[in-house]
Amino acid sequence: MSRIAYVNGRFVPHSHAEVHVEDRGYQFADGVYEVVLVQNGVMVDEIPHLERLDRSLDELRIPHPMSRGALRAQMRELVRQNRIRNGLVYMQVTRGVAKRDHPFPKNAKPSIVMTAKRIAMATPEAVENGVKVITIKDIRWERCDIKSIALLPNVLGKQQARENGAFEAWQVDEDGKVTEGTSSNAWIVTQDGELVTRPATNDILNGITRMSILKLADRQGLKFVERPFSVEEAKSAREAFVSSATAFVTPVTQIDDTVIGNGKAGSLSRGLRDSYMDYAAGEGATA
Amino acid sequence: MSRIAYVNGRFVPHSHAEVHVEDRGYQFADGVYEVVLVQNGVMVDEIPHLERLDRSLDELRIPHPMSRGALRAQMRELVRQNRIRNGLVYMQVTRGVAKRDHPFPKNAKPSIVMTAKRIAMATPEAVENGVKVITIKDIRWERCDIKSIALLPNVLGKQQARENGAFEAWQVDEDGKVTEGTSSNAWIVTQDGELVTRPATNDILNGITRMSILKLADRQGLKFVERPFSVEEAKSAREAFVSSATAFVTPVTQIDDTVIGNGKAGSLSRGLRDSYMDYAAGEGATA
Repeated sequence: MSRIAYVNGRFVPHSHAEVHVEDRGYQFADGVYEVVLVQNGVMVDEIPHLERLDRSLDELRIPHPMSRGALRAQMRELVRQNRIRNGLVYMQVTRGVAKRDHPFPKNAKPSIVMTAKRIAMATPEAVENGVKVITIKDIRWERCDIKSIALLPNVLGKQQARENGAFEAWQVDEDGKVTEGTSSNAWIVTQDGELVTRPATNDILNGITRMSILKLADRQGLKFVERPFSVEEAKSAREAFVSSATAFVTPVTQIDDTVIGNGKAGSLSRGLRDSYMDYAAGEGATA
Repeated sequence: MSRIAYVNGRFVPHSHAEVHVEDRGYQFADGVYEVVLVQNGVMVDEIPHLERLDRSLDELRIPHPMSRGALRAQMRELVRQNRIRNGLVYMQVTRGVAKRDHPFPKNAKPSIVMTAKRIAMATPEAVENGVKVITIKDIRWERCDIKSIALLPNVLGKQQARENGAFEAWQVDEDGKVTEGTSSNAWIVTQDGELVTRPATNDILNGITRMSILKLADRQGLKFVERPFSVEEAKSAREAFVSSATAFVTPVTQIDDTVIGNGKAGSLSRGLRDSYMDYAAGEGATA
């Protein structure tokens, strides 16, 4: 079966999914995106993702391309046509096609493109072994709260991670504090058992999975705090993990050359992963 | 006559100039660009622009899509097909099409797209009256020396300029010093008659026109220095101007609410504009 993509109102073979070279997404990174997980045929945290899409669009003053109801219908049609049971929907909205000029064009119509693909879940062994992260300087712009497609610094950071045998790169601000990964949020559990993640300011993207985890932690009465933490603190933490729509809660067992805990997934991380999986299959799921 | 674009080896009608939605330029801003002026049918500062293109590609480790000779031939063919006598060639190179994933893809072939269009020269009156610039916070990433297509902050800045009746926005760093415009370099002439522009570090894009102006200033024995200057200094300057491949030297006669000099183009700015025009038509031109 060949993949199908959605391009500005039409379902087309993935190989023919094209946009104009003067789409402002191509020439100016003038657009935003979201990734929504599909698990057992249902969307996970769909509404919060679409709410964040609206927020990103509003921050950039890009008109919404369609109503939320229409968008949800198209997402479902795309998942159906691609026969996705476990995978993801990627969606991107840009300011549209216009003669190249920096300011907002007068009459451009926003472009919307969606793709879908299957993804495999991490094996229990992979989760237990955890992943390595490296730390790099955060060189991004000052509006990381907007989920824009201007991802070049994230690309460079992720590539650096790969070349160092790591799953992710944690970006570090001028004060030596971790902001977030290049495509995930960063968490630690201190030696006192307190869960810590950076507060959602302009310095990070407020992850939807991040927010769900905070909600679950709160409900379970876990000790947690939103505050910046340093690289040193992370390296001496009891546990660490990353969160994202596709990584869920993925334990971190090495930061640069430092092994975290006993080099295996920590118990709080494992517990949160399990809770999140339950949440994703129940309360967080929309058919 | 309908416009023609160049897309990955083919000359196509502009309306059909399309790239795949998984071109990394569209999803990750993973690419670079150049704008080369065409004046009286010849290219201006073509070689320095192509050298900078190579540098941007090398910094991002994107392979060069073709030899410089082949690229120059395609540029000329595009200009010919579009019958451009006075205009510009826009070219963009991205890391190519690959399944969406942040790290560099293994076997992607770089994409190259070029468009060409006619542009009108500023009238003598417009030059004499000069333009207004506003000052805004520089919120960009730390590698502004790379001419990347991750231009979202530049778009937002230029839009802010337009909404304030200004031609350009000068971005200001944390120390209150001007870095550059959103698509041009920033210059002042102090009350002592010294020409000042910021040195080319990672904080700015080293303009090709900027470099040509420095060369001309040096030859003419003008007093000049490359150093950061503050917004206050700019507002009390004798003259100010912006430079770019399409703006050449454009006098600035207002910064925020402050009129510069007597509100008309300064003599040094006018002289440099004339020198640059001569240079562009002679030494800087390649047939």
